[in-house]
Parts: sequence; structure tokens; C-alpha cells
Amino acid sequence: MIVLMNILSVYCHHEPSSLTSSLKNIATSVLISHGHQVVEDDLYASGFEAKAEKYDFTVLSGSHFNYMLEQRNAVKKGMAFAPDIQSEFQKVIKADVILIHTPLWWLGVPALLKGWFDRVLVMGAAWDGGKIYEQGLLRGRSVMLCVVAGGPEEFFRPEGKHKATIGQILHPIHQGTLAFCGLDVLKPYVVFNSLGLSAGGRAAVLSDYQFQIEQLSVSPDYLIKY
Amino acid sequence: MIVLMNILSVYCHHEPSSLTSSLKNIATSVLISHGHQVVEDDLYASGFEAKAEKYDFTVLSGSHFNYMLEQRNAVKKGMAFAPDIQSEFQKVIKADVILIHTPLWWLGVPALLKGWFDRVLVMGAAWDGGKIYEQGLLRGRSVMLCVVAGGPEEFFRPEGKHKATIGQILHPIHQGTLAFCGLDVLKPYVVFNSLGLSAGGRAAVLSDYQFQIEQLSVSPDYLIKY
Repeated sequence: MIVLMNILSVYCHHEPSSLTSSLKNIATSVLISHGHQVVEDDLYASGFEAKAEKYDFTVLSGSHFNYMLEQRNAVKKGMAFAPDIQSEFQKVIKADVILIHTPLWWLGVPALLKGWFDRVLVMGAAWDGGKIYEQGLLRGRSVMLCVVAGGPEEFFRPEGKHKATIGQILHPIHQGTLAFCGLDVLKPYVVFNSLGLSAGGRAAVLSDYQFQIEQLSVSPDYLIKY
Repeated sequence: MIVLMNILSVYCHHEPSSLTSSLKNIATSVLISHGHQVVEDDLYASGFEAKAEKYDFTVLSGSHFNYMLEQRNAVKKGMAFAPDIQSEFQKVIKADVILIHTPLWWLGVPALLKGWFDRVLVMGAAWDGGKIYEQGLLRGRSVMLCVVAGGPEEFFRPEGKHKATIGQILHPIHQGTLAFCGLDVLKPYVVFNSLGLSAGGRAAVLSDYQFQIEQLSVSPDYLIKY
């Protein structure tokens, strides 16, 4: 049995010649060649805004301005959000699987991608009071991070420079952001030492990632599954 | 003996009536009343840009555009950065202690504050190849996070909803960002359940924070000390 899926590929890098871009490209090619639908979502190229602010709402509640509660109010008022938020949220809703292609900056995602979490995963539609984790409003979808880290793998150990594993470092995203909204979280694909990669090393990474993407619809490997 | 310090108070919230704002204000009042110098750095009000991109550099190396390596190039070219980055970096250099007042959004900092890390903690001046952690270029300064979390404290336990303590959640910032640049990291001040706070609870929080701020120059309590 082949399951055909709608894939949203969120991509956050300013350089088309980056490894992050190549990983995004190979995922798209492979998925399309297998018959899946892919929407590429290039946050830098689209001019997506990073910063959460009042302009994000076309209607305000009039109460003390709390961003999260204004999100819930805007949902109730028929998704009264700025156009970029509306458009991004529709992409999320239509996806069966969300891939997120990002570099690791300061052991986190770039500000622009953090802004996508802040602005698009809106209270009232992605989650709500009491509607988190197992009850999250994005239930039934999966998500996978593909992360490119410049630093060497040995930094990412409890006894290494960063004093934590990559799993511990990504926990606020995997658990507190993605699973929080009810998404099933696939094991991440992580590239270390990207700056030190030879051409051969880079080709090996892309081939390895292609294999992991091919497994997505065949035998998905979950970190968190509801 | 009284040590008078230069304090940089970075503040990332859009609402003057927020608890985060009140915490920032009380820190400033207390520190000034004790004779310290305080620079308030209001990222929302100043129009600081969150998104890292090519426009951040007034000179480019001409090589493949890698943001981090361009930072190092721009430092060598005499801090050839956009004005907001130059100005922010000077504030960091002049500080003995950096306070960071922020809400916790998605178990991390808002995109705008993440952008401050991405754009201001520049390779070549805040850290460099081999100049990280104990050798970080911002050595001799301290930093403290003051974090306001909407969720209840019981979510922040290994067996809680978020499946991690606040210390584990802040680790990528404390360790991988601030200590990475050689900063001594003070124990954070964390407020939980901010949305559920009564007026009395809020007053107690502010009083408690005032006490912690008063301890800063008397008996600083470090999480990471070089």
C-alpha cells in the first residue's frame, strides 16, 4: 500500500547554495517522484515577518494586549490575522507531514523560524486552553526537523562543550512547541560539523537524507507519537 | 565595599503594562537607587530587526555567504555592520552585567530576542574559532535571565507536561549562547503561571525580584562561572 501525502516543507535559510537548501531540495525531489504533493515554504524568500506584534491582528479584543489571548480572539473573529499568518496557517492545516529545514543557530532555530512558531501556531486553532499535547488541535499530522549544525558532534554530549545531547537541545521545539500542538514528532535528521564537510561528505549526507525521506511513508520513526 | 556596575537591561516585550515590563522597571529603579548605571534596551520600541540577512553587513567577503563567517569578516573590517547591530554590540561591551527581561514563548525567547542573539553576538568579537566558553570574548561580564512563563510550574518537571525542568529548557540559552561567549551566567529569575497571578501575587513577585536584584552586587549566585 502506498499512502500519498501532502507535505509542507518549511525552509529557513537565506542562501540557495547552503546545505540546508540542498537538503530541502532533495526532500522535495524524492517526495514528488514518489507521487506526494509538496509545498515549499521559503520563509526568507517570502518576506515572512519574524516579530510578533499588534499589526498581526486585524481585530483587537480591546483588553490588555496579551499576544496569545489576542490570537484566540482573532481565531474567533474568523481568522482576523495579517495575510502572512493566515496563509501560513492554511498551509499547516492542509499538510499531513511538515518538514522543517533549518540551520542550528545558538542551539536553536533562527529568529525567523522562531517567529513562524510564535505567529503561526496560534492559540485557538493550533492549541487552546486544555487542548495541548494529546489534545492539541493539530492532531493527526506529523512533523520532522532537519537540522544543520556547524559544530562537531562531540560538542553535543553531556560531557561535551555544550553539555547536552542534540535531543536535549531540541526538546523545547520537539516537545514544548510541536508536540504541544498535538503533532506527532518524527526523529530529527541532524547534520553536524557542516562547515567541515568535504564534497564527498556532503554527497553522503544528501544520500543519507534521501533514504530517511523515503522511509517517511514506509516506516516512519517517531520520537513522540499520539 | 560597594561595587558600582554598568548594567545593560535588555527587554523584549511589546506591552508596557506587561509583568515583564514591570520586572524590568523595578530592576532599573533598584539598581539606580544603589548608584549603578543602567541602560535600558527596549528591543520592540527601538525597532531592532529580528531577521539575520545580508543587509546586516556594509562589507561582504565575496565568498559563499555564510552569516557567521561574514560576521567575522565584518569585525575585521572595523565593525562593518548595520547601525542597530553596531549600537547593540557597543552596549554589550560597556556592560558589567546584562539583564535580559523576556517572556517565555514556546519554551524559548520571542523571535525578536532570538534575533538579538543571532545578530549581535557576532563571531570575531563575542566569540571566535577556539574562543568559546572559558575563552569566550565576552569574559569578565555576567548575565541573568528574568523569564515570565504563562504556564504553571508543575508543567516544568521531568514528569510534567513539558517533560523537562526550566533549567533544562533554558540550557540552550544559558550554556550554548551566553556561556558560549564567555559570560558568567547568574541563576535565572523565573515567574510561572503569570496569567493566573492575582494582584497580590504580582506584588509579591515584584518584591521578590527586587530582593534578587539587590543581591546582584552583594552576593551574586552563579549557574555558570568562569
